[in-house]
Amino acid sequence: MEKNKLVKEIYRKKSFLCLGLDTDISKIPSFLLSESDPVFTFNKQLIDSLNEIIVAIKINTAFYEEHGSKGWLSLEKTIKYINSKYPELFTIADAKRGDIGNTSDRYAKAFFETLSFDSITVSPYMGSDSVKPFLKYKNKFTILLGLTSNLGSKDFQLYPKQENPLFKEVILKSLKWNESNNLMYVIGATKADYLKEIRSIVPDSFLLIPGIGAQGGSLKDTFVNGASNEVGLLVNSSRAIIYAGNNNDYLKKSFKVAKSYQFEMENLINSLDD
Amino acid sequence: MEKNKLVKEIYRKKSFLCLGLDTDISKIPSFLLSESDPVFTFNKQLIDSLNEIIVAIKINTAFYEEHGSKGWLSLEKTIKYINSKYPELFTIADAKRGDIGNTSDRYAKAFFETLSFDSITVSPYMGSDSVKPFLKYKNKFTILLGLTSNLGSKDFQLYPKQENPLFKEVILKSLKWNESNNLMYVIGATKADYLKEIRSIVPDSFLLIPGIGAQGGSLKDTFVNGASNEVGLLVNSSRAIIYAGNNNDYLKKSFKVAKSYQFEMENLINSLDD
Repeated sequence: MEKNKLVKEIYRKKSFLCLGLDTDISKIPSFLLSESDPVFTFNKQLIDSLNEIIVAIKINTAFYEEHGSKGWLSLEKTIKYINSKYPELFTIADAKRGDIGNTSDRYAKAFFETLSFDSITVSPYMGSDSVKPFLKYKNKFTILLGLTSNLGSKDFQLYPKQENPLFKEVILKSLKWNESNNLMYVIGATKADYLKEIRSIVPDSFLLIPGIGAQGGSLKDTFVNGASNEVGLLVNSSRAIIYAGNNNDYLKKSFKVAKSYQFEMENLINSLDD
Repeated sequence: MEKNKLVKEIYRKKSFLCLGLDTDISKIPSFLLSESDPVFTFNKQLIDSLNEIIVAIKINTAFYEEHGSKGWLSLEKTIKYINSKYPELFTIADAKRGDIGNTSDRYAKAFFETLSFDSITVSPYMGSDSVKPFLKYKNKFTILLGLTSNLGSKDFQLYPKQENPLFKEVILKSLKWNESNNLMYVIGATKADYLKEIRSIVPDSFLLIPGIGAQGGSLKDTFVNGASNEVGLLVNSSRAIIYAGNNNDYLKKSFKVAKSYQFEMENLINSLDD
Protein backbone atom coordinates (compact mmCIF):
# COMPACT_ATOMS: atom_id res chain seq x y z
CA MET A 1 0.00 0.00 0.00
CA GLU A 2 1.23 3.53 -0.72
CA LYS A 3 1.86 5.72 2.30
CA ASN A 4 -0.42 8.43 0.89
CA LYS A 5 -3.30 6.02 0.82
CA LEU A 6 -2.83 5.16 4.48
CA VAL A 7 -2.77 8.86 5.37
CA LYS A 8 -5.97 9.42 3.40
CA GLU A 9 -7.70 6.56 5.18
CA ILE A 10 -6.68 7.98 8.55
CA TYR A 11 -8.34 11.29 7.68
CA ARG A 12 -11.37 9.67 6.08
CA LYS A 13 -12.05 7.43 9.06
CA LYS A 14 -10.75 9.89 11.65
CA SER A 15 -8.91 6.98 13.14
CA PHE A 16 -5.35 5.75 13.54
CA LEU A 17 -6.42 2.61 15.32
CA CYS A 18 -4.68 -0.67 14.59
CA LEU A 19 -6.49 -3.85 15.55
CA GLY A 20 -4.12 -6.43 17.00
CA LEU A 21 -5.14 -9.98 16.26
CA ASP A 22 -3.27 -11.79 19.03
CA THR A 23 -5.90 -14.47 18.77
CA ASP A 24 -5.76 -17.04 21.56
CA ILE A 25 -8.10 -19.97 21.04
CA SER A 26 -8.47 -20.41 24.80
CA LYS A 27 -9.91 -16.89 25.11
CA ILE A 28 -12.37 -16.70 22.22
CA PRO A 29 -16.09 -17.25 22.81
CA SER A 30 -16.72 -20.95 23.34
CA PHE A 31 -19.61 -21.11 20.85
CA LEU A 32 -17.03 -20.52 18.08
CA LEU A 33 -15.11 -23.68 18.94
CA SER A 34 -17.44 -25.82 16.82
CA GLU A 35 -16.31 -23.92 13.71
CA SER A 36 -13.81 -25.71 11.45
CA ASP A 37 -11.27 -22.93 12.06
CA PRO A 38 -12.40 -21.00 15.15
CA VAL A 39 -9.43 -18.62 15.08
CA PHE A 40 -10.13 -17.58 11.50
CA THR A 41 -13.86 -17.22 12.14
CA PHE A 42 -13.19 -15.07 15.20
CA ASN A 43 -10.77 -12.87 13.22
CA LYS A 44 -13.14 -12.60 10.27
CA GLN A 45 -16.08 -11.52 12.42
CA LEU A 46 -13.99 -8.92 14.22
CA ILE A 47 -12.66 -7.53 10.93
CA ASP A 48 -16.17 -7.40 9.41
CA SER A 49 -17.41 -5.60 12.49
CA LEU A 50 -14.56 -3.12 12.96
CA ASN A 51 -13.21 -2.36 9.47
CA GLU A 52 -14.76 1.10 9.25
CA ILE A 53 -13.29 2.38 12.52
CA ILE A 54 -9.78 0.93 12.20
CA VAL A 55 -7.12 1.69 9.58
CA ALA A 56 -4.69 -1.16 10.20
CA ILE A 57 -4.58 -4.76 11.36
CA LYS A 58 -1.58 -6.26 13.11
CA ILE A 59 -1.27 -10.03 13.18
CA ASN A 60 1.01 -11.35 15.91
CA THR A 61 2.62 -14.43 14.36
CA ALA A 62 3.43 -16.07 17.72
CA PHE A 63 -0.23 -16.77 18.42
CA TYR A 64 -0.50 -18.69 15.14
CA GLU A 65 2.86 -20.49 15.24
CA GLU A 66 1.88 -21.83 18.63
CA HIS A 67 -0.44 -24.19 16.72
CA GLY A 68 2.10 -25.24 14.09
CA SER A 69 1.10 -25.52 10.43
CA LYS A 70 -2.57 -25.47 11.42
CA GLY A 71 -2.06 -22.07 13.04
CA TRP A 72 -0.09 -20.85 10.06
CA LEU A 73 -3.08 -21.80 7.91
CA SER A 74 -5.41 -19.65 10.05
CA LEU A 75 -2.96 -16.80 9.59
CA GLU A 76 -2.93 -17.31 5.83
CA LYS A 77 -6.71 -17.34 5.65
CA THR A 78 -6.92 -14.19 7.75
CA ILE A 79 -4.51 -12.12 5.67
CA LYS A 80 -6.06 -13.38 2.42
CA TYR A 81 -9.50 -12.38 3.69
CA ILE A 82 -8.34 -8.88 4.60
CA ASN A 83 -6.52 -8.35 1.29
CA SER A 84 -9.48 -9.47 -0.79
CA LYS A 85 -12.30 -7.82 1.14
CA TYR A 86 -10.67 -4.79 2.78
CA PRO A 87 -7.64 -3.81 0.68
CA GLU A 88 -7.82 -0.32 2.20
CA LEU A 89 -6.67 -1.74 5.57
CA PHE A 90 -2.93 -1.51 6.18
CA THR A 91 -1.66 -4.93 7.26
CA ILE A 92 1.20 -5.57 9.67
CA ALA A 93 2.92 -8.90 10.26
CA ASP A 94 4.07 -8.49 13.84
CA ALA A 95 6.82 -11.05 13.45
CA LYS A 96 9.96 -9.37 14.87
CA ARG A 97 12.10 -11.10 12.26
CA GLY A 98 15.69 -10.33 11.20
CA ASP A 99 18.69 -12.48 10.21
CA ILE A 100 21.70 -12.43 7.89
CA GLY A 101 20.90 -11.03 4.43
CA ASN A 102 20.47 -14.36 2.70
CA THR A 103 17.90 -15.35 5.35
CA SER A 104 16.14 -12.00 5.70
CA ASP A 105 15.57 -12.28 1.95
CA ARG A 106 13.40 -15.32 2.69
CA TYR A 107 11.51 -13.63 5.50
CA ALA A 108 10.82 -10.68 3.22
CA LYS A 109 9.54 -13.05 0.57
CA ALA A 110 7.44 -14.95 3.12
CA PHE A 111 5.65 -11.87 4.44
CA PHE A 112 5.63 -9.47 1.46
CA GLU A 113 5.10 -11.96 -1.37
CA THR A 114 3.69 -15.28 -0.11
CA LEU A 115 1.40 -13.67 2.48
CA SER A 116 1.12 -10.17 0.91
CA PHE A 117 1.38 -8.14 4.08
CA ASP A 118 1.95 -4.40 3.68
CA SER A 119 4.55 -4.36 6.44
CA ILE A 120 6.50 -6.40 8.96
CA THR A 121 8.12 -5.65 12.32
CA VAL A 122 11.89 -6.27 12.23
CA SER A 123 14.50 -6.43 14.99
CA PRO A 124 17.56 -4.27 14.33
CA TYR A 125 20.03 -6.29 16.46
CA MET A 126 21.85 -7.87 13.49
CA GLY A 127 22.35 -4.54 11.71
CA SER A 128 21.90 -3.01 8.29
CA ASP A 129 22.31 -6.08 6.08
CA SER A 130 19.66 -7.91 8.11
CA VAL A 131 17.12 -5.15 7.41
CA LYS A 132 17.92 -4.15 3.83
CA PRO A 133 16.26 -7.17 2.17
CA PHE A 134 12.94 -5.91 3.56
CA LEU A 135 13.54 -2.31 2.49
CA LYS A 136 13.93 -2.99 -1.20
CA TYR A 137 10.23 -3.76 -1.67
CA LYS A 138 8.34 -0.79 -3.06
CA ASN A 139 5.24 0.26 -1.11
CA LYS A 140 6.05 -2.30 1.58
CA PHE A 141 7.11 -1.10 5.01
CA THR A 142 9.69 -2.29 7.47
CA ILE A 143 8.71 -1.42 11.02
CA LEU A 144 11.97 -1.38 12.94
CA LEU A 145 11.94 -1.99 16.69
CA GLY A 146 12.98 1.24 18.34
CA LEU A 147 11.93 1.65 21.95
CA THR A 148 9.50 -1.09 22.89
CA SER A 149 6.69 -0.98 25.44
CA ASN A 150 7.89 -3.72 27.81
CA LEU A 151 9.86 -3.36 31.02
CA GLY A 152 12.89 -5.18 29.61
CA SER A 153 13.26 -2.49 26.93
CA LYS A 154 15.54 -0.67 29.36
CA ASP A 155 18.04 -3.55 29.41
CA PHE A 156 19.61 -2.93 26.03
CA GLN A 157 17.58 -0.28 24.19
CA LEU A 158 18.72 2.35 26.71
CA TYR A 159 22.31 1.06 26.75
CA PRO A 160 24.79 2.53 27.47
CA LYS A 161 23.32 5.81 28.79
CA GLN A 162 20.34 8.12 28.78
CA GLU A 163 22.23 10.54 26.49
CA ASN A 164 23.07 8.09 23.73
CA PRO A 165 20.80 5.09 24.05
CA LEU A 166 20.97 2.24 21.55
CA PHE A 167 17.43 2.81 20.29
CA LYS A 168 18.40 6.34 19.17
CA GLU A 169 21.47 4.98 17.42
CA VAL A 170 19.20 2.47 15.67
CA ILE A 171 16.89 5.21 14.41
CA LEU A 172 19.72 7.56 13.41
CA LYS A 173 21.68 4.90 11.56
CA SER A 174 18.59 3.53 9.84
CA LEU A 175 17.93 6.92 8.27
CA LYS A 176 21.12 6.56 6.24
CA TRP A 177 20.10 3.25 4.66
CA ASN A 178 18.86 3.13 1.09
CA GLU A 179 15.10 3.18 0.82
CA SER A 180 14.85 4.48 4.38
CA ASN A 181 11.55 6.04 3.33
CA ASN A 182 10.16 2.51 3.64
CA LEU A 183 10.90 2.52 7.37
CA MET A 184 8.48 2.90 10.24
CA TYR A 185 9.36 2.45 13.92
CA VAL A 186 7.89 0.64 16.91
CA ILE A 187 7.75 2.97 19.90
CA GLY A 188 5.85 1.82 22.99
CA ALA A 189 3.02 3.98 24.29
CA THR A 190 4.51 3.50 27.74
CA LYS A 191 7.48 5.61 26.58
CA ALA A 192 5.60 8.86 25.93
CA ASP A 193 8.48 10.83 27.52
CA TYR A 194 10.74 9.89 24.64
CA LEU A 195 8.21 10.44 21.89
CA LYS A 196 8.83 14.16 21.39
CA GLU A 197 12.54 13.63 20.80
CA ILE A 198 11.92 10.64 18.54
CA ARG A 199 9.42 12.63 16.49
CA SER A 200 12.01 15.38 16.03
CA ILE A 201 14.45 12.83 14.57
CA VAL A 202 11.88 11.27 12.23
CA PRO A 203 9.40 14.09 11.55
CA ASP A 204 7.57 12.24 8.78
CA SER A 205 7.85 8.54 9.61
CA PHE A 206 4.96 6.49 10.81
CA LEU A 207 5.30 5.17 14.36
CA LEU A 208 3.59 1.95 15.37
CA ILE A 209 2.56 2.35 19.00
CA PRO A 210 1.71 -0.71 21.05
CA GLY A 211 1.09 -0.58 24.78
CA ILE A 212 -2.25 1.24 24.96
CA GLY A 213 -4.75 -0.64 27.11
CA ALA A 214 -3.45 -3.81 28.77
CA GLN A 215 0.06 -2.38 29.03
CA GLY A 216 -1.05 0.99 30.43
CA GLY A 217 0.02 3.65 27.90
CA SER A 218 -2.02 6.84 27.36
CA LEU A 219 -3.51 7.67 23.97
CA LYS A 220 -3.58 11.40 24.56
CA ASP A 221 0.07 11.60 25.71
CA THR A 222 1.06 9.51 22.73
CA PHE A 223 -0.71 11.83 20.35
CA VAL A 224 0.43 15.09 21.89
CA ASN A 225 4.06 13.99 21.93
CA GLY A 226 4.17 11.75 18.90
CA ALA A 227 1.85 12.98 16.14
CA SER A 228 3.39 14.26 12.91
CA ASN A 229 1.77 16.90 10.70
CA GLU A 230 -0.14 14.07 9.04
CA VAL A 231 -0.85 12.15 12.25
CA GLY A 232 1.89 9.58 11.47
CA LEU A 233 0.76 7.18 14.18
CA LEU A 234 -0.73 3.73 14.24
CA VAL A 235 -1.86 2.96 17.75
CA ASN A 236 -2.42 -0.71 18.36
CA SER A 237 -4.81 -2.34 20.74
CA SER A 238 -5.11 -6.09 20.92
CA ARG A 239 -6.41 -7.69 24.11
CA ALA A 240 -8.53 -4.72 25.25
CA ILE A 241 -10.57 -4.92 22.04
CA ILE A 242 -10.65 -8.55 20.98
CA TYR A 243 -11.40 -9.99 24.42
CA ALA A 244 -13.81 -7.24 25.50
CA GLY A 245 -16.52 -9.90 25.63
CA ASN A 246 -16.52 -13.65 25.42
CA ASN A 247 -20.14 -14.44 24.80
CA ASN A 248 -22.73 -14.01 22.04
CA ASP A 249 -22.36 -10.28 22.45
CA TYR A 250 -18.58 -10.23 21.99
CA LEU A 251 -18.73 -8.28 18.72
CA LYS A 252 -20.88 -5.62 20.31
CA LYS A 253 -18.50 -5.32 23.25
CA SER A 254 -15.34 -5.17 21.17
CA PHE A 255 -16.98 -2.61 18.88
CA LYS A 256 -17.79 -0.47 21.89
CA VAL A 257 -14.17 -0.48 23.08
CA ALA A 258 -12.75 0.13 19.59
CA LYS A 259 -15.29 2.88 18.96
CA SER A 260 -14.32 4.64 22.18
CA TYR A 261 -10.68 4.65 21.03
CA GLN A 262 -11.70 5.88 17.59
CA PHE A 263 -13.83 8.62 19.12
CA GLU A 264 -10.89 9.84 21.19
CA MET A 265 -8.73 9.69 18.07
CA GLU A 266 -11.26 11.71 16.10
CA ASN A 267 -11.08 14.48 18.68
CA LEU A 268 -7.30 14.38 18.66
CA ILE A 269 -7.13 14.50 14.84
CA ASN A 270 -9.58 17.39 14.78
CA SER A 271 -7.38 19.23 17.29
CA LEU A 272 -4.54 19.16 14.69
CA ASP A 273 -6.54 21.62 12.57
CA ASP A 274 -6.86 24.10 15.41
CA MET B 1 17.82 -32.88 25.83
CA GLU B 2 20.16 -32.69 28.82
CA LYS B 3 23.39 -30.80 28.30
CA ASN B 4 25.39 -33.81 29.52
CA LYS B 5 23.94 -35.95 26.80
CA LEU B 6 25.00 -33.48 24.13
CA VAL B 7 28.54 -33.42 25.55
CA LYS B 8 28.63 -37.22 25.53
CA GLU B 9 27.52 -37.35 21.91
CA ILE B 10 30.23 -34.86 20.94
CA TYR B 11 32.88 -37.14 22.45
CA ARG B 12 31.33 -40.32 21.10
CA LYS B 13 31.12 -39.00 17.54
CA LYS B 14 34.24 -36.83 17.80
CA SER B 15 32.20 -34.12 16.19
CA PHE B 16 30.65 -30.80 17.09
CA LEU B 17 29.17 -30.33 13.66
CA CYS B 18 25.69 -28.87 13.28
CA LEU B 19 23.90 -29.45 10.00
CA GLY B 20 22.02 -26.37 8.84
CA LEU B 21 18.88 -27.17 6.92
CA ASP B 22 18.41 -23.89 5.04
CA THR B 23 16.58 -25.88 2.44
CA ASP B 24 15.85 -23.94 -0.74
CA ILE B 25 13.61 -25.80 -3.17
CA SER B 26 15.25 -24.04 -6.12
CA LYS B 27 18.63 -25.51 -5.16
CA ILE B 28 17.81 -29.13 -4.39
CA PRO B 29 18.41 -31.87 -6.99
CA SER B 30 15.73 -31.64 -9.65
CA PHE B 31 14.91 -35.36 -9.54
CA LEU B 32 13.46 -34.78 -6.04
CA LEU B 33 10.88 -32.31 -7.35
CA SER B 34 8.50 -35.12 -8.28
CA GLU B 35 8.24 -36.10 -4.58
CA SER B 36 5.07 -35.01 -2.74
CA ASP B 37 7.19 -32.90 -0.37
CA PRO B 38 10.62 -32.42 -1.98
CA VAL B 39 11.95 -30.28 0.89
CA PHE B 40 11.11 -32.93 3.48
CA THR B 41 12.52 -35.76 1.32
CA PHE B 42 15.75 -33.82 0.78
CA ASN B 43 16.07 -33.14 4.52
CA LYS B 44 15.27 -36.74 5.43
CA GLN B 45 17.86 -38.16 3.07
CA LEU B 46 20.54 -35.78 4.33
CA ILE B 47 19.73 -36.62 7.95
CA ASP B 48 19.78 -40.38 7.25
CA SER B 49 23.11 -39.98 5.51
CA LEU B 50 24.83 -37.65 8.00
CA ASN B 51 23.40 -38.50 11.43
CA GLU B 52 26.49 -40.35 12.65
CA ILE B 53 28.94 -37.53 11.91
CA ILE B 54 26.85 -34.59 13.13
CA VAL B 55 25.59 -33.87 16.67
CA ALA B 56 23.04 -31.16 15.95
CA ILE B 57 20.60 -29.99 13.31
CA LYS B 58 19.63 -26.35 12.86
CA ILE B 59 16.47 -25.60 10.96
CA ASN B 60 16.30 -22.07 9.58
CA THR B 61 12.62 -21.15 9.79
CA ALA B 62 12.81 -18.47 7.08
CA PHE B 63 13.33 -21.06 4.36
CA TYR B 64 10.10 -22.79 5.37
CA GLU B 65 7.97 -19.72 6.06
CA GLU B 66 8.78 -18.54 2.56
CA HIS B 67 6.31 -21.21 1.39
CA GLY B 68 3.58 -20.37 3.88
CA SER B 69 1.67 -23.14 5.69
CA LYS B 70 2.99 -25.67 3.17
CA GLY B 71 6.54 -24.80 4.17
CA TRP B 72 5.61 -24.91 7.83
CA LEU B 73 4.33 -28.45 7.22
CA SER B 74 7.71 -29.51 5.74
CA LEU B 75 9.35 -28.05 8.85
CA GLU B 76 6.97 -30.01 11.10
CA LYS B 77 7.63 -33.25 9.28
CA THR B 78 11.38 -32.70 9.45
CA ILE B 79 11.55 -32.06 13.20
CA LYS B 80 9.14 -34.93 13.89
CA TYR B 81 11.32 -37.26 11.82
CA ILE B 82 14.48 -36.24 13.70
CA ASN B 83 12.84 -36.58 17.11
CA SER B 84 11.46 -40.02 16.39
CA LYS B 85 14.40 -41.54 14.54
CA TYR B 86 17.44 -39.68 15.91
CA PRO B 87 16.55 -38.41 19.40
CA GLU B 88 20.28 -38.18 20.15
CA LEU B 89 20.58 -35.23 17.74
CA PHE B 90 20.33 -31.81 19.37
CA THR B 91 17.77 -29.73 17.46
CA ILE B 92 17.88 -25.98 16.97
CA ALA B 93 15.07 -23.81 15.66
CA ASP B 94 17.00 -20.96 14.07
CA ALA B 95 14.10 -18.59 14.37
CA LYS B 96 15.60 -15.41 15.92
CA ARG B 97 12.38 -14.80 17.85
CA GLY B 98 11.75 -12.48 20.81
CA ASP B 99 8.84 -10.24 21.85
CA ILE B 100 7.07 -8.97 24.99
CA GLY B 101 6.64 -11.67 27.63
CA ASN B 102 3.05 -12.55 26.80
CA THR B 103 4.10 -13.15 23.16
CA SER B 104 7.45 -14.84 23.83
CA ASP B 105 5.40 -17.30 25.90
CA ARG B 106 3.69 -18.33 22.66
CA TYR B 107 6.93 -18.61 20.71
CA ALA B 108 8.37 -20.79 23.46
CA LYS B 109 5.29 -22.97 23.31
CA ALA B 110 5.45 -23.12 19.51
CA PHE B 111 9.05 -24.29 19.35
CA PHE B 112 9.52 -26.19 22.63
CA GLU B 113 6.10 -27.86 22.91
CA THR B 114 4.28 -27.94 19.58
CA LEU B 115 7.41 -28.66 17.53
CA SER B 116 9.58 -30.17 20.30
CA PHE B 117 12.85 -28.51 19.41
CA ASP B 118 15.64 -28.72 22.00
CA SER B 119 16.57 -25.08 21.49
CA ILE B 120 15.74 -21.84 19.71
CA THR B 121 17.76 -18.77 18.70
CA VAL B 122 16.43 -15.61 20.36
CA SER B 123 17.18 -11.93 19.75
CA PRO B 124 18.02 -9.99 22.94
CA TYR B 125 16.91 -6.55 21.69
CA MET B 126 13.71 -6.41 23.76
CA GLY B 127 15.47 -7.36 26.98
CA SER B 128 15.08 -9.78 29.87
CA ASP B 129 11.31 -10.23 29.91
CA SER B 130 11.37 -11.13 26.22
CA VAL B 131 13.83 -13.97 26.86
CA LYS B 132 12.66 -15.34 30.20
CA PRO B 133 9.63 -17.25 28.85
CA PHE B 134 12.08 -19.43 26.90
CA LEU B 135 14.41 -19.96 29.86
CA LYS B 136 11.87 -21.52 32.14
CA TYR B 137 11.75 -24.77 30.15
CA LYS B 138 13.91 -27.48 31.72
CA ASN B 139 16.40 -29.14 29.38
CA LYS B 140 15.48 -26.70 26.63
CA PHE B 141 18.02 -24.13 25.51
CA THR B 142 17.77 -20.48 24.55
CA ILE B 143 20.51 -19.51 22.15
CA LEU B 144 20.85 -15.77 22.53
CA LEU B 145 22.27 -13.71 19.69
CA GLY B 146 25.61 -12.36 20.85
CA LEU B 147 28.00 -11.34 18.11
CA THR B 148 26.71 -12.52 14.77
CA SER B 149 28.69 -13.50 11.67
CA ASN B 150 27.37 -10.89 9.24
CA LEU B 151 28.92 -7.56 8.29
CA GLY B 152 26.06 -5.57 9.81
CA SER B 153 26.84 -7.03 13.23
CA LYS B 154 29.14 -4.07 13.74
CA ASP B 155 26.26 -1.58 13.45
CA PHE B 156 24.73 -2.17 16.86
CA GLN B 157 26.40 -5.19 18.48
CA LEU B 158 29.64 -3.19 18.78
CA TYR B 159 27.86 -0.02 19.90
CA PRO B 160 28.95 2.25 21.47
CA LYS B 161 32.65 1.33 21.60
CA GLN B 162 35.19 -1.46 21.31
CA GLU B 163 35.64 -1.41 25.11
CA ASN B 164 32.03 -1.90 26.09
CA PRO B 165 30.14 -3.24 23.09
CA LEU B 166 26.46 -4.08 23.34
CA PHE B 167 27.01 -7.79 22.68
CA LYS B 168 29.18 -8.03 25.80
CA GLU B 169 26.53 -6.23 27.84
CA VAL B 170 23.99 -8.74 26.49
CA ILE B 171 26.09 -11.70 27.62
CA LEU B 172 26.98 -10.18 31.01
CA LYS B 173 23.41 -9.19 31.81
CA SER B 174 22.01 -12.52 30.66
CA LEU B 175 24.18 -14.35 33.19
CA LYS B 176 22.17 -12.73 35.98
CA TRP B 177 18.82 -14.01 34.74
CA ASN B 178 17.13 -16.94 36.42
CA GLU B 179 17.81 -20.25 34.71
CA SER B 180 20.77 -18.69 32.90
CA ASN B 181 22.21 -22.22 32.75
CA ASN B 182 19.71 -22.76 29.93
CA LEU B 183 21.47 -20.14 27.83
CA MET B 184 23.76 -20.67 24.87
CA TYR B 185 25.08 -17.90 22.60
CA VAL B 186 25.40 -17.30 18.88
CA ILE B 187 28.90 -16.10 18.05
CA GLY B 188 29.92 -15.88 14.39
CA ALA B 189 32.98 -17.82 13.23
CA THR B 190 34.05 -14.67 11.41
CA LYS B 191 34.61 -13.07 14.84
CA ALA B 192 37.36 -15.38 16.08
CA ASP B 193 39.23 -12.37 17.53
CA TYR B 194 36.50 -11.92 20.10
CA LEU B 195 36.07 -15.58 20.95
CA LYS B 196 38.77 -15.79 23.59
CA GLU B 197 37.27 -12.96 25.61
CA ILE B 198 33.75 -14.30 25.22
CA ARG B 199 34.88 -17.74 26.37
CA SER B 200 36.42 -16.17 29.48
CA ILE B 201 33.03 -14.60 30.33
CA VAL B 202 31.06 -17.81 29.76
CA PRO B 203 33.55 -20.59 30.45
CA ASP B 204 30.98 -23.39 30.38
CA SER B 205 28.26 -22.25 27.98
CA PHE B 206 27.76 -23.75 24.58
CA LEU B 207 28.41 -21.40 21.69
CA LEU B 208 26.60 -21.87 18.41
CA ILE B 209 29.00 -20.83 15.67
CA PRO B 210 27.67 -20.05 12.21
CA GLY B 211 29.83 -18.59 9.46
CA ILE B 212 32.11 -21.50 8.60
CA GLY B 213 32.17 -22.18 4.86
CA ALA B 214 30.11 -19.81 2.71
CA GLN B 215 30.72 -16.91 5.12
CA GLY B 216 34.47 -17.51 5.41
CA GLY B 217 35.17 -18.33 9.09
CA SER B 218 37.96 -20.73 10.12
CA LEU B 219 37.22 -23.90 12.07
CA LYS B 220 40.66 -24.09 13.64
CA ASP B 221 40.67 -20.47 14.84
CA THR B 222 37.19 -20.98 16.23
CA PHE B 223 38.24 -24.03 18.18
CA VAL B 224 41.54 -22.65 19.48
CA ASN B 225 39.88 -19.46 20.71
CA GLY B 226 36.44 -20.73 21.59
CA ALA B 227 36.53 -24.30 22.92
CA SER B 228 35.64 -24.91 26.56
CA ASN B 229 37.03 -27.77 28.62
CA GLU B 230 34.22 -29.90 27.25
CA VAL B 231 34.40 -28.54 23.69
CA GLY B 232 31.30 -26.36 24.24
CA LEU B 233 30.92 -25.53 20.57
CA LEU B 234 28.38 -26.32 17.91
CA VAL B 235 29.76 -25.27 14.56
CA ASN B 236 27.14 -24.94 11.90
CA SER B 237 27.48 -25.46 8.19
CA SER B 238 24.51 -25.13 5.91
CA ARG B 239 25.08 -24.30 2.26
CA ALA B 240 28.57 -25.83 1.99
CA ILE B 241 27.17 -29.22 2.98
CA ILE B 242 23.62 -29.40 1.71
CA TYR B 243 24.33 -27.99 -1.76
CA ALA B 244 27.68 -29.76 -2.25
CA GLY B 245 26.09 -31.64 -5.14
CA ASN B 246 22.85 -31.27 -7.03
CA ASN B 247 22.61 -34.51 -8.90
CA ASN B 248 22.08 -38.22 -8.12
CA ASP B 249 25.34 -38.16 -6.20
CA TYR B 250 24.36 -35.26 -3.93
CA LEU B 251 24.34 -37.40 -0.78
CA LYS B 252 27.82 -38.68 -1.51
CA LYS B 253 29.08 -35.14 -2.09
CA SER B 254 27.49 -33.64 1.00
CA PHE B 255 28.78 -36.56 3.06
CA LYS B 256 32.29 -35.89 1.79
CA VAL B 257 32.14 -32.22 2.83
CA ALA B 258 30.58 -33.00 6.22
CA LYS B 259 33.06 -35.79 6.82
CA SER B 260 35.99 -33.48 6.11
CA TYR B 261 34.65 -31.06 8.75
CA GLN B 262 34.13 -33.92 11.19
CA PHE B 263 37.64 -35.22 10.54
CA GLU B 264 39.12 -31.80 11.31
CA MET B 265 36.93 -31.66 14.44
CA GLU B 266 38.14 -35.10 15.54
CA ASN B 267 41.73 -33.90 15.39
CA LEU B 268 40.85 -30.74 17.30
CA ILE B 269 38.96 -32.66 20.01
CA ASN B 270 41.85 -35.10 20.36
CA SER B 271 44.22 -32.16 20.79
CA LEU B 272 42.25 -31.15 23.93
CA ASP B 273 43.60 -34.28 25.66
CA ASP B 274 47.20 -33.32 24.94
